[in-house]
Amino acid sequence: MTTNQTNPTEQAGTPAAPVAAHVFAIGPEEVKETTGLTPAEIKALRGTVPVIWVDFDGPVDEETLAEFGKIFELHPLSLEDVMHARQRPKVEHFPKYHFIVTRMVALKEKINSEQLSLFFGNNFVLTFQEKHGGDCLEPLREGLRHMGIESLRSLTADYLAYSIVDMVVDGFFPVLKTLGDRLNDLEEEIFRRHDQHHAARIHAIKRDIWALRQTIWPVRDALANLQRENINLVQTETRLHLRDCYDHALRIIELVESHQTMCSDLMELQMSRENSRMNEILRVLTIISTIFIPPTFVAGIYGMNFHGDRSPLNMPELDWQYGYPFALCIMALMMGGLVAWMWWKGWLSGIRSNRRFTKPFRQEIKDREDRLKK
Amino acid sequence: MTTNQTNPTEQAGTPAAPVAAHVFAIGPEEVKETTGLTPAEIKALRGTVPVIWVDFDGPVDEETLAEFGKIFELHPLSLEDVMHARQRPKVEHFPKYHFIVTRMVALKEKINSEQLSLFFGNNFVLTFQEKHGGDCLEPLREGLRHMGIESLRSLTADYLAYSIVDMVVDGFFPVLKTLGDRLNDLEEEIFRRHDQHHAARIHAIKRDIWALRQTIWPVRDALANLQRENINLVQTETRLHLRDCYDHALRIIELVESHQTMCSDLMELQMSRENSRMNEILRVLTIISTIFIPPTFVAGIYGMNFHGDRSPLNMPELDWQYGYPFALCIMALMMGGLVAWMWWKGWLSGIRSNRRFTKPFRQEIKDREDRLKK
Amino acid sequence: MTTNQTNPTEQAGTPAAPVAAHVFAIGPEEVKETTGLTPAEIKALRGTVPVIWVDFDGPVDEETLAEFGKIFELHPLSLEDVMHARQRPKVEHFPKYHFIVTRMVALKEKINSEQLSLFFGNNFVLTFQEKHGGDCLEPLREGLRHMGIESLRSLTADYLAYSIVDMVVDGFFPVLKTLGDRLNDLEEEIFRRHDQHHAARIHAIKRDIWALRQTIWPVRDALANLQRENINLVQTETRLHLRDCYDHALRIIELVESHQTMCSDLMELQMSRENSRMNEILRVLTIISTIFIPPTFVAGIYGMNFHGDRSPLNMPELDWQYGYPFALCIMALMMGGLVAWMWWKGWLSGIRSNRRFTKPFRQEIKDREDRLKK
Amino acid sequence: MTTNQTNPTEQAGTPAAPVAAHVFAIGPEEVKETTGLTPAEIKALRGTVPVIWVDFDGPVDEETLAEFGKIFELHPLSLEDVMHARQRPKVEHFPKYHFIVTRMVALKEKINSEQLSLFFGNNFVLTFQEKHGGDCLEPLREGLRHMGIESLRSLTADYLAYSIVDMVVDGFFPVLKTLGDRLNDLEEEIFRRHDQHHAARIHAIKRDIWALRQTIWPVRDALANLQRENINLVQTETRLHLRDCYDHALRIIELVESHQTMCSDLMELQMSRENSRMNEILRVLTIISTIFIPPTFVAGIYGMNFHGDRSPLNMPELDWQYGYPFALCIMALMMGGLVAWMWWKGWLSGIRSNRRFTKPFRQEIKDREDRLKK
Amino acid sequence: MTTNQTNPTEQAGTPAAPVAAHVFAIGPEEVKETTGLTPAEIKALRGTVPVIWVDFDGPVDEETLAEFGKIFELHPLSLEDVMHARQRPKVEHFPKYHFIVTRMVALKEKINSEQLSLFFGNNFVLTFQEKHGGDCLEPLREGLRHMGIESLRSLTADYLAYSIVDMVVDGFFPVLKTLGDRLNDLEEEIFRRHDQHHAARIHAIKRDIWALRQTIWPVRDALANLQRENINLVQTETRLHLRDCYDHALRIIELVESHQTMCSDLMELQMSRENSRMNEILRVLTIISTIFIPPTFVAGIYGMNFHGDRSPLNMPELDWQYGYPFALCIMALMMGGLVAWMWWKGWLSGIRSNRRFTKPFRQEIKDREDRLKK
Repeated sequence: MTTNQTNPTEQAGTPAAPVAAHVFAIGPEEVKETTGLTPAEIKALRGTVPVIWVDFDGPVDEETLAEFGKIFELHPLSLEDVMHARQRPKVEHFPKYHFIVTRMVALKEKINSEQLSLFFGNNFVLTFQEKHGGDCLEPLREGLRHMGIESLRSLTADYLAYSIVDMVVDGFFPVLKTLGDRLNDLEEEIFRRHDQHHAARIHAIKRDIWALRQTIWPVRDALANLQRENINLVQTETRLHLRDCYDHALRIIELVESHQTMCSDLMELQMSRENSRMNEILRVLTIISTIFIPPTFVAGIYGMNFHGDRSPLNMPELDWQYGYPFALCIMALMMGGLVAWMWWKGWLSGIRSNRRFTKPFRQEIKDREDRLKK
Repeated sequence: MTTNQTNPTEQAGTPAAPVAAHVFAIGPEEVKETTGLTPAEIKALRGTVPVIWVDFDGPVDEETLAEFGKIFELHPLSLEDVMHARQRPKVEHFPKYHFIVTRMVALKEKINSEQLSLFFGNNFVLTFQEKHGGDCLEPLREGLRHMGIESLRSLTADYLAYSIVDMVVDGFFPVLKTLGDRLNDLEEEIFRRHDQHHAARIHAIKRDIWALRQTIWPVRDALANLQRENINLVQTETRLHLRDCYDHALRIIELVESHQTMCSDLMELQMSRENSRMNEILRVLTIISTIFIPPTFVAGIYGMNFHGDRSPLNMPELDWQYGYPFALCIMALMMGGLVAWMWWKGWLSGIRSNRRFTKPFRQEIKDREDRLKK
Repeated sequence: MTTNQTNPTEQAGTPAAPVAAHVFAIGPEEVKETTGLTPAEIKALRGTVPVIWVDFDGPVDEETLAEFGKIFELHPLSLEDVMHARQRPKVEHFPKYHFIVTRMVALKEKINSEQLSLFFGNNFVLTFQEKHGGDCLEPLREGLRHMGIESLRSLTADYLAYSIVDMVVDGFFPVLKTLGDRLNDLEEEIFRRHDQHHAARIHAIKRDIWALRQTIWPVRDALANLQRENINLVQTETRLHLRDCYDHALRIIELVESHQTMCSDLMELQMSRENSRMNEILRVLTIISTIFIPPTFVAGIYGMNFHGDRSPLNMPELDWQYGYPFALCIMALMMGGLVAWMWWKGWLSGIRSNRRFTKPFRQEIKDREDRLKK
Repeated sequence: MTTNQTNPTEQAGTPAAPVAAHVFAIGPEEVKETTGLTPAEIKALRGTVPVIWVDFDGPVDEETLAEFGKIFELHPLSLEDVMHARQRPKVEHFPKYHFIVTRMVALKEKINSEQLSLFFGNNFVLTFQEKHGGDCLEPLREGLRHMGIESLRSLTADYLAYSIVDMVVDGFFPVLKTLGDRLNDLEEEIFRRHDQHHAARIHAIKRDIWALRQTIWPVRDALANLQRENINLVQTETRLHLRDCYDHALRIIELVESHQTMCSDLMELQMSRENSRMNEILRVLTIISTIFIPPTFVAGIYGMNFHGDRSPLNMPELDWQYGYPFALCIMALMMGGLVAWMWWKGWLSGIRSNRRFTKPFRQEIKDREDRLKK
Repeated sequence: MTTNQTNPTEQAGTPAAPVAAHVFAIGPEEVKETTGLTPAEIKALRGTVPVIWVDFDGPVDEETLAEFGKIFELHPLSLEDVMHARQRPKVEHFPKYHFIVTRMVALKEKINSEQLSLFFGNNFVLTFQEKHGGDCLEPLREGLRHMGIESLRSLTADYLAYSIVDMVVDGFFPVLKTLGDRLNDLEEEIFRRHDQHHAARIHAIKRDIWALRQTIWPVRDALANLQRENINLVQTETRLHLRDCYDHALRIIELVESHQTMCSDLMELQMSRENSRMNEILRVLTIISTIFIPPTFVAGIYGMNFHGDRSPLNMPELDWQYGYPFALCIMALMMGGLVAWMWWKGWLSGIRSNRRFTKPFRQEIKDREDRLKK
């Protein structure tokens, strides 16, 4: 079965201007997909099919909204919530319809999210999107266009509403997947090389995850509300599906928390790596300074201009046959003693071990642990 | 319809002194706005109009309060709470009226907040502000002054009380917006340049946000209380609006938590940047010291006053034809060896990369990530 | 109306030794205040007045306690709790009386707290303090002494018990105020000057606040218990007052949490300041070392004793007419190059900016932010 | 009693292809274990024995799953959950069966976990494993094979389901044990020697523990759900056993939390050790530099080429008989003074104490504490 | 009244081997204490006295346990929990008895804890200890031995069980006291002197406290369960006592949390002290280097071998009469300028203040705060 995609210009004979809504008239036999209908036409269409889905893919002006409010008998408070995007996701029950506010997310350069306001009643579903383009409902539309007759007959408004919400909730998964991949890449990076900008990268991902978290939590509450309450218009079978959708929301929350923990752990690890690096740098500085400063002092002494010809007390070593080897010996002893002392302190080991850690780190850790056990 | 703004001095004929209250007598036909009425006049006015709103824009003395307590039959405990500002926001239900304590906030140099005590009963709303001036109710007053007749007829005391509370709650949003902007500026700043005072700035914003948090939480509880409980004097329609107002309070709490997290993240980031900077500084110190200290020691040796004419063992290089090039070679070898070693350790890379990070940081991060993938 | 302060020695005619209790016999007409009564006398007094308050300002021995347990029909478990101070604050309901354990706090050099065990029944209030002296109930006693007849007539045991608990709870506020002031002073101090002992000071205040927190939380629970439960002996009017007292406890908890957050923030700030300082110190060290170590090396080279008269390769500059200026130029170029490089890295700015931060810090922050916006 | 292990090839006469399921037909008299039955055979077998357990040790294709869904009357949503592994552990109740999703864990190089989907109804248990091989149910199978007659008679499907879940839950313990041992080893290591890779090791264990935590929490909820709810098909005796299993899940959660705390503590300790080490390194650097830099400067002065024969002001010490000893004395005084000052500051003590800490650390701590008390 | 301590060997005439249980037969008139009875004798004894307490001070073999399970009609699951020590503390109710699992703690070198499994029914109490020796029930036994007749008559099994649990719970207090003392000692130590092992000490105490916390939390839950539920076999009077015991558990939890916070605070303080120390060390290093490196460079210049007799440009100061004083002046000016600059930066103050902090720190803090106020 195919859908009849009628040309909107043919029908635009009524005086009211057509609106930018995408309309699916889902009948028992076929699905009619139209755009550019006038409000009056939509009103007329409403009674003729079992389910009608009117979808505004972008902001609507207040008048249109008010008109649709009248057609579908919506409460002014709900319409206000549609106008003022940036509502918290929520579900509100009214005698003749249910009102769901949720958010769709997509990961471009950063997290993009837009409000989706959904009304569903006896035989209609009405959706308002905050921004033009880029929604995640295309697979659903495609599904509607190619739906079999038996599925069409059993399709109800509440099931269609569930399908939309389910698609919105499942839209979080690819975003989380991408963020998770970035975190894993970052983990590898942190182990591979020092870079002071790692912290900034973790910080950026952290903010994105936090934004997701702020969005998904109230969605979860709304789903719990929709599923648990003994509400009219939602059939038992749909409620079963909502339970599944709620489980997905829980899973998203778990993933979000997992990513948050990962961020904190990576930040901690990065700090620790930075600290270790500072430690190593300081160790080298200290070793070099400690070895060379004392003999330099000795050399300085013998560089003083106290000559033996002025006073017999003036550095007799200068005139002594073995004075120079003696001075060199003193310096060598100093340096040797300090090196020995530092070796004994364990400061000399591991200076060279830095490069080796560029192997995949889990392997490295395992190798080292194996060696520890021996 | 316009409001009749009567001159208070005309009516001050009663013996009791007039009080500094701003009175709106909201009748079915018109809104009368007066100031400087005596308590007796207010008492008289009360019965004549459907709703009366008496607003004290500043502290009141105990006698006046007691008098109004008698006029509107208020419980002494409530009056005490009005006197002792710094109560927690709360709602208390009494048989003949409800008592709401909340706080209004405004962001001047720092967060200013003042207590607003609100009583509302059958046909009156009574508000007491802690401080003079600067409230956020002016739009509401303006709205009352220009309200249409049909709106006036349906206006009830509980709806007026809701409108006041709603305005107070919505007053948090601009404050949060400003703080959020400051945080975003700070984030840019932290990425742009090092400044040890960033921490102090974050700390200052943190305190302001904490103050907001302390204020909004009990407001939320109070709203939940007012909305959920099966209380008299509050009509169903008003309760719907209160639910909306409660959602706004939840949104504010989410924003506050978001800002708090942002503060912590920025503090962490600032710490990390400071650490990275210290790391870089130390690296430079170590590189310079490590390269120059050993050859300086060698130069010191050849600066010792052991002359070959005293003993043939005294630095034969001094008398050797190629002694000087030989010494220079040793030094150059030392320096070259150390530079090579440090290059091999990866310490020499990135010394120059500091300035580049002054580009907008998201761009920078993206660029780097793109490069990483290649 | 004045109270008759009878001399205890006149009445000590019974064989049992008098006890160190302070007794208020609150009649419908007057308040009698006595000390040094024997248990028998107190028992006799009990029936004759509407309310009797027996207050032990210090520890009591087990026998006296047992005797009073018999007089007022108290459960042995309650008496045990009185003996073993360091109970958690709590409320326990018995058929004929209620038993409240709470703690009074006072801030001397550190937080002092003592247990107050309070029994109240039909016509009596019994209080046991853990330590001698220094309670916070004196204003209440003073109030009782000068109470008007109408107040006396309506005074009941449950209201007196509430008054005592209220006074105990309100006793937390001055302590918190003092700690808050100290924290604010510390904040100023941290901004004004570096001192490694700031951390110790914050730590000390933290411990005090923690002790307060441990005390007030169970008090809150006890008050909620006392207020909410449908218990006998507590009248509706008193319950209203208890609700107020409960609100005060909530407010105290909020203050405590606010102070705790402040402590953590200050600790973090102090850490950050210490780090910044270390950063600055290291920067200076690095700048000085980096500028002077390389030319010192050059000077060392020309200080070597390779004289041109031994070999023509030995530092021809020494014999060259412009050798000295040439050497100076090399050194100056080195130093200049390093200075320029460090200036380009942004390390030279801000070295001098330390003192300026001793201005009140909010002003400083504001100034800087204003400048940032330009 | 032994089980009859029939050869699957003998029975594969039906047209439908045999499936890779391991089937236990648990009769009142004996246990029959078969593999490679066709769905039809399994369907036929189902009615003939009290309990049948069909176990798929690996992924199944959608058709097989649908066929089994028809045989055992399973809801399509449940079948979907089986297909899409990575569900949250949960329990879902359907009129004719219960559906349990849980995860089995095993520690190879890292935590491996696979989903186990379990259906149990009146006379069947159906399990689907996500991956081939390596399950933890072998002991249970072995137990079934050698079960006594009286046990077989009383075995019910719900008890068998409980046994499987119990085995899965108990499978967490060895994993936790191994991780705990690793943590203890790491603790010893951290005390024994410095290694910048300790942090990476702690980080790796942390991630594994977090994965466990994410798995066990919903398992706990599912068990609570299964145990508490008044559900059909689960007998009272089984419920008692489930309570026990739930206690084990609680114990696992406690262990997980304990390990998490241990990780944080170790990270903190590692940080502290790194810091201490940096402290010590810097102390040595400072001591050496402080002692030798000033006298080197003095030596430098006397190394200047101001000779007394050019001007009488030019370092008369050079020509003074005791000039050299005098210069040495100055240097010795400088060095001695600085050493004394540093000794007085307490910087010289403990330089040598590093090696001693390689003793088992609890002993070390105890020794030190004993000494402190003296 | 004294107890008759009968010799076990006299009665060992029955064939079954005697068990290592300590039996108290608590009659209405006297308490009989025996050891080494056979199970049959214990079974016989059970009916003859109002309460019998059988206590196994150490592990029992499975057969004995099964036998006692039969005698006292215990559920096999309970017996399993006895065998597998390391259960979570819990309470389980069975029709004829209650089963309590709890843990006894003792502080030797580290926290020792052992499981105590307690059954109590109509006229018996049965306790199984995990390890031999060292329980905390001796005072209870001693009390039983010397109990007066009237107490004996009113003693019931549930009260005896309560007494045992109460003793176990109270056994946590001395352990917590010791740990608290150690923490206070450590606090003093941290203020008195630097020691890098402080962190390890705090870490060790932290682990012990965590172990306590893991133990006491489920004990609390078990007590709440035992106290609240409307269970048979527990009399009202005992329930009152259990409420008290529950309060003790709450108090222990508060102490544990207090100790945990103390640990974190100490760790933080220790970190801060280490940082401060590093700061101070670096300051000294920087001061010394900054003062001496520049003049050393100047001395190096005048030590170069450019002699005036080769070229008139070669350091004319060497031949100038005031050249040497001039050079010294330059150096002195450099040093003076740097000292002045550092003094102006506030780096020179407080170098000497380290030792003074060894006074008791609260006093120190107070002194400083007093001085701050002036």
